[in-house]
Amino acid sequence: MSSLSDEIVGRIDELGAISEKAGSLTRVFLSREHRAAAELLLGWMRLAGMRAHLDAIGNICGRYEGEQPGLPCLMLGSHYDTVRDAGKWDGPLGLVTAISCVADLNRRRRRLPFAIEVIGFADEEGVRYASTLLGSRAVAGTFDESLLGKTDAAGITMRDALARFGLDPDHIGRAARTRAEVLAYVELHIEQGPVLEGLDLPVGVVSAIAGATRLAANLTGMAGHAGTVPMPLRRDALVGAAECIVEIEEFCRTDADGLVGTVGYIHAMPGATNVIPGQVAFTIDIRAPSDAHRKLAVTDIVRRIETIAKRRKLALQIDVTHENRTVPCAPWLKRQVTDAIAAEGFRAFELPSGAGHDGMAMIDIADVGMIFVRCRGGISHHPDEHVDSADVEAGARVLLRLIENFRPRDDAN
Amino acid sequence: MSSLSDEIVGRIDELGAISEKAGSLTRVFLSREHRAAAELLLGWMRLAGMRAHLDAIGNICGRYEGEQPGLPCLMLGSHYDTVRDAGKWDGPLGLVTAISCVADLNRRRRRLPFAIEVIGFADEEGVRYASTLLGSRAVAGTFDESLLGKTDAAGITMRDALARFGLDPDHIGRAARTRAEVLAYVELHIEQGPVLEGLDLPVGVVSAIAGATRLAANLTGMAGHAGTVPMPLRRDALVGAAECIVEIEEFCRTDADGLVGTVGYIHAMPGATNVIPGQVAFTIDIRAPSDAHRKLAVTDIVRRIETIAKRRKLALQIDVTHENRTVPCAPWLKRQVTDAIAAEGFRAFELPSGAGHDGMAMIDIADVGMIFVRCRGGISHHPDEHVDSADVEAGARVLLRLIENFRPRDDAN
Repeated sequence: MSSLSDEIVGRIDELGAISEKAGSLTRVFLSREHRAAAELLLGWMRLAGMRAHLDAIGNICGRYEGEQPGLPCLMLGSHYDTVRDAGKWDGPLGLVTAISCVADLNRRRRRLPFAIEVIGFADEEGVRYASTLLGSRAVAGTFDESLLGKTDAAGITMRDALARFGLDPDHIGRAARTRAEVLAYVELHIEQGPVLEGLDLPVGVVSAIAGATRLAANLTGMAGHAGTVPMPLRRDALVGAAECIVEIEEFCRTDADGLVGTVGYIHAMPGATNVIPGQVAFTIDIRAPSDAHRKLAVTDIVRRIETIAKRRKLALQIDVTHENRTVPCAPWLKRQVTDAIAAEGFRAFELPSGAGHDGMAMIDIADVGMIFVRCRGGISHHPDEHVDSADVEAGARVLLRLIENFRPRDDAN
Repeated sequence: MSSLSDEIVGRIDELGAISEKAGSLTRVFLSREHRAAAELLLGWMRLAGMRAHLDAIGNICGRYEGEQPGLPCLMLGSHYDTVRDAGKWDGPLGLVTAISCVADLNRRRRRLPFAIEVIGFADEEGVRYASTLLGSRAVAGTFDESLLGKTDAAGITMRDALARFGLDPDHIGRAARTRAEVLAYVELHIEQGPVLEGLDLPVGVVSAIAGATRLAANLTGMAGHAGTVPMPLRRDALVGAAECIVEIEEFCRTDADGLVGTVGYIHAMPGATNVIPGQVAFTIDIRAPSDAHRKLAVTDIVRRIETIAKRRKLALQIDVTHENRTVPCAPWLKRQVTDAIAAEGFRAFELPSGAGHDGMAMIDIADVGMIFVRCRGGISHHPDEHVDSADVEAGARVLLRLIENFRPRDDAN
């Protein structure tokens, strides 16, 4: 096998240049850049021996037939939209690698006892309409039609944006696929975290896409003059919030099973140097590789926050604003990924994905497997996002081996 | 003695209606409202038997001669500017009460072995030019002429504003008084804190105007995805800041000598629910009744923050942005205030002022004494600021008794 990474890295660069503005990468749903990227990718799919088309939501779909036409497929994919001021690897690496793997099979005229489909999802990040996984939800048949009325920052509804792109908003249902057509959904993606780098491993087996609970907390005490209220008489909402933040870290840090908790946003009111904060709003993001574990953790954390608020005589309002269930990767697919990694000479390390991925939607019509590729410093959603060519090569070889050795699920595996 | 509080409360209401806009109280330096309030106050001074004029910075100055003309004076005063959306008591209570006390002496044709001057400072809050104590600094002869070039939000320099008000910016020096003219400066003011209310006392003896040190702290760690970075690999700047905030509270709470520390402002960047904060800025305000105590506390607190930052591998930038020395009230004046309070039948409780007052400037030409009057809930700088009529009466009686019993400092007292 010749190097796959040269082709992949070249294409990642080419795709990364298709952006809203030069010098930084932003490519959102149903934009001119979406169109340009889709055309480039459809061309590469066809070069790889696939039939390829744009589906009803703007996903690109390529199909490489198996030993006979019409067989169910192993579906490979990732997304080709980006966050604002993005890196070029998040999404495209999985998509471009899958196309290059198919191209390699095609060059060798290798046909398998199943079809391969490669899908590029049109919107995973949810930048334009603040709603994620639009592409994969359409494929899974779970697209929420009420989103069509949502407007972007310029006031354009999703319905209008689809129509202007040349798609029929009333026919999104046509993008949906069925469980009978799809043997498995496998995605290769950059880790977006520092675990593989810390272990000096180029690739890893994803155990699950961690579920997440997001909460909004509001503590209300009593504002006052920073000079005139003695410490024992204060009901300082910010010190209360600070105690909660330290407690959340401590709770998650001492958990052995991959629980993570983050306070990313805080706002203290009135926010003046010389005024005791009377009110503080902050967010909490809790993730764990299993739903049961996460739910227990959320309950415990909320109880601890309630205790702090009560002791400090602060009024507490705390609400769940968002919840995603955990999507476990299928054991039989994890085994095949593990075997492929081992066969390529690497240690197969299992780690959860803390970030969301299209598998969260695809689980509704297929078992899901994921391969992580190391990224430098764990940095993602940033122009500094980087994958070494050697790791691109390792990821591609693992994916190619997985494809060639793929056995559909049966009662025996 | 008939009730003083009826007159005082009525005038506080009348003065409180002179505002930039109806329905809320804002009265800033050299505004049309400044002029209207000054004219009203000058009229009340004259009714009280005083000669009264506007000085070179816009302060109002009233003089009630003693047993013979030209004697040195006991100077009473407070400010008549306000913060934005202010309460009506902060400043005016002391000024209006002093005028009513003089009026009472005048009605009784009582002359004392010293003159009484009542001064209403034109700017204490510093709202318009972000520089406080302009009125009292001019009287103390410490006005900083370089401030004349400062502009307000509308781009008007202080020099122009003075000229438009009919004052000569080159003659501010004429407002200055000398130590020989002033036997003492005594100010009555609302407490702006909850201590007297907690003790169920209408009035209190101020021990000192606490000095303040303000610091700006900046912690830099590493931003990252809230889902993908395991807890042990994080360098979360917000958890670091939270630990500092809890530590500052703990440090001040366990101090027996009136130390207070406040974090009033915090900003976490990038500030998204699902991103680990990579950078956090926050302010620290530290006050204590003695400079030595405050400076020691600042050193200790900075050292603790440095320890937290080091342990968490966060870069720390911490700078002093503002520093005010402590102004102790003169022991001989505290004794006379204590005696006056006791003579009115109240317990004389000593407490520091955490807020700044004109005494901070007046200390340069006179010994300073202060009387605090209880305000409801300790609330100030807010429309809910309130003083009960009974407490207004108590404050006025204490001030009047202090005036009538006043003995200038000599080696014996």
